[in-house]
Amino acid sequence: MSFDRLQQAIIRTKNPTVAGLDARLEYVPQPMIDRAIAQYGETRKAAAEAIFAFNCGLIDALCDIVPAVKPQAAYYELLGWEGMEMLERTIRYAKEKGMYVIADVKRGDIGATASAYAEGWLGKTVVGGAQLSCFDADCVTVNGYMGADAVNPFLKIANQEDKALFVLVRTSNPSAVDLQDLEIGGGKIYDVMGALAAKWGEGYLDRYGYNRVGAVVGATWPEQLAQLRKALPHTFLLVPGYGAQGGTAEDVRFAFDEKGHGAIVNSSRGIMCAWKKTGNAGADFQDAARAAAVEMRDAITAITPILD
Amino acid sequence: MSFDRLQQAIIRTKNPTVAGLDARLEYVPQPMIDRAIAQYGETRKAAAEAIFAFNCGLIDALCDIVPAVKPQAAYYELLGWEGMEMLERTIRYAKEKGMYVIADVKRGDIGATASAYAEGWLGKTVVGGAQLSCFDADCVTVNGYMGADAVNPFLKIANQEDKALFVLVRTSNPSAVDLQDLEIGGGKIYDVMGALAAKWGEGYLDRYGYNRVGAVVGATWPEQLAQLRKALPHTFLLVPGYGAQGGTAEDVRFAFDEKGHGAIVNSSRGIMCAWKKTGNAGADFQDAARAAAVEMRDAITAITPILD
Repeated sequence: MSFDRLQQAIIRTKNPTVAGLDARLEYVPQPMIDRAIAQYGETRKAAAEAIFAFNCGLIDALCDIVPAVKPQAAYYELLGWEGMEMLERTIRYAKEKGMYVIADVKRGDIGATASAYAEGWLGKTVVGGAQLSCFDADCVTVNGYMGADAVNPFLKIANQEDKALFVLVRTSNPSAVDLQDLEIGGGKIYDVMGALAAKWGEGYLDRYGYNRVGAVVGATWPEQLAQLRKALPHTFLLVPGYGAQGGTAEDVRFAFDEKGHGAIVNSSRGIMCAWKKTGNAGADFQDAARAAAVEMRDAITAITPILD
Repeated sequence: MSFDRLQQAIIRTKNPTVAGLDARLEYVPQPMIDRAIAQYGETRKAAAEAIFAFNCGLIDALCDIVPAVKPQAAYYELLGWEGMEMLERTIRYAKEKGMYVIADVKRGDIGATASAYAEGWLGKTVVGGAQLSCFDADCVTVNGYMGADAVNPFLKIANQEDKALFVLVRTSNPSAVDLQDLEIGGGKIYDVMGALAAKWGEGYLDRYGYNRVGAVVGATWPEQLAQLRKALPHTFLLVPGYGAQGGTAEDVRFAFDEKGHGAIVNSSRGIMCAWKKTGNAGADFQDAARAAAVEMRDAITAITPILD
């Protein structure tokens, strides 16, 4: 969906955060793994089923207080097609529970190939007379290194289906500087990418003043966050890097507009792995995840209230 | 595998080309589609089975004269998990027939996430005491926009498994100029990315003088191809954009070293869709693909002979 449905959900829950669903087996409580292996053996199917049970438990624990989830495709591809099948189920389950789903796929390819990605992740596949959904996320992340040819096919499907996308602009990792921080003309490469995202998004504004082409900007770079927020007033921001990677509530306040709109902050391990700190071997993984999500929400909104 | 196995296969077949396996249903002869729909209905499974039959037919027709195939992940994701399951089968089948498999996934993510991609596409997944292969390609394409954090995890697995990767440097599409051609210091962004690829690859040379980190440079930019070939003497090049996108045998000669080594040129639709030009409704898709592959091989090697 266009970002206004996400913004509405953020306003309803008074929570501008998204829970990453990036489960490796290491993040799943051992009894859930043992149960799956007892049933399916030491197979990819067992891993997929253990993680699906964990994902559903997280979604159940979070769906009334967290507006969105962000499954990271890598952790599903790690399990081959069984992982992809489980990803489809995870997305469906989260949507049934009313959550907005951002598929973090960071795809970047051109023309007909980008169209195939866009149809698979946001749109429909045509087989004979049938139009079939595949992954059917509300939103995806896209890599713009190849330019407009990589983004426009996603935008076309997003327009058709009333969905949205985020382009990588300033990623949260230390080596983001390798390329993104190089000086170019009067600015940096990430400024150029941000300006391209704004240009690609032109021609549509939702009720909150944002277009369909958002930008990924890491919480670990508060100065750039403030600068990009100002330079890109119609660009919704997805902000990874909170918590484990070092971003704080103080850092991410620069991502929001004056109403506390226009951005969503991700936490993955901070929520998924919260059970590892309670000493209960995962028996309380749902309560631990919920408590971590509440703590993150409260920390961010204490500094940045979400207005209606 | 490291690029020396690819180079050996190129020398054996005297053919420096790779066949793209990017099938959408539109590229598959209608009788194969009809057969699959008769068996499975208008479903994603039917589409996957039609394309699998087509892929196997292409591999059978090409495996003794073309050294490698390059399945493009987008066309498989377009069919959801059934497409990914079929991609696994396609990769396995091509390897059984002795072909080198480049999975064109263009993944780009960081740290633990990049590791998950690398394990899924090149390495192994651990479940309990079992080490399980998933997609198990010989080589992948990677997007380096996020810097070393996005590439090193792939390189680590490539080192462990004796495999390789290509980093996007100068892509073949028109809008590559949006970002890659911008001036920076004394060169362009693609020069920087090329130099990063060379740096990331340091510390290993195969028997032909190439490291494990290749670069994607489009056939549609012959000047840049010549310049990058010279600047990056140890970087194996994957050259898309031949044929349908406009690159010629004359253009791609700049990709090779003086022995005709160090590069491989891709054709996807030119081979897959060759049957559309023979007027036989696809009954001869294998002969047509083989004839197109021979024509491409002969055109390129007439200008650039492959020495031992």
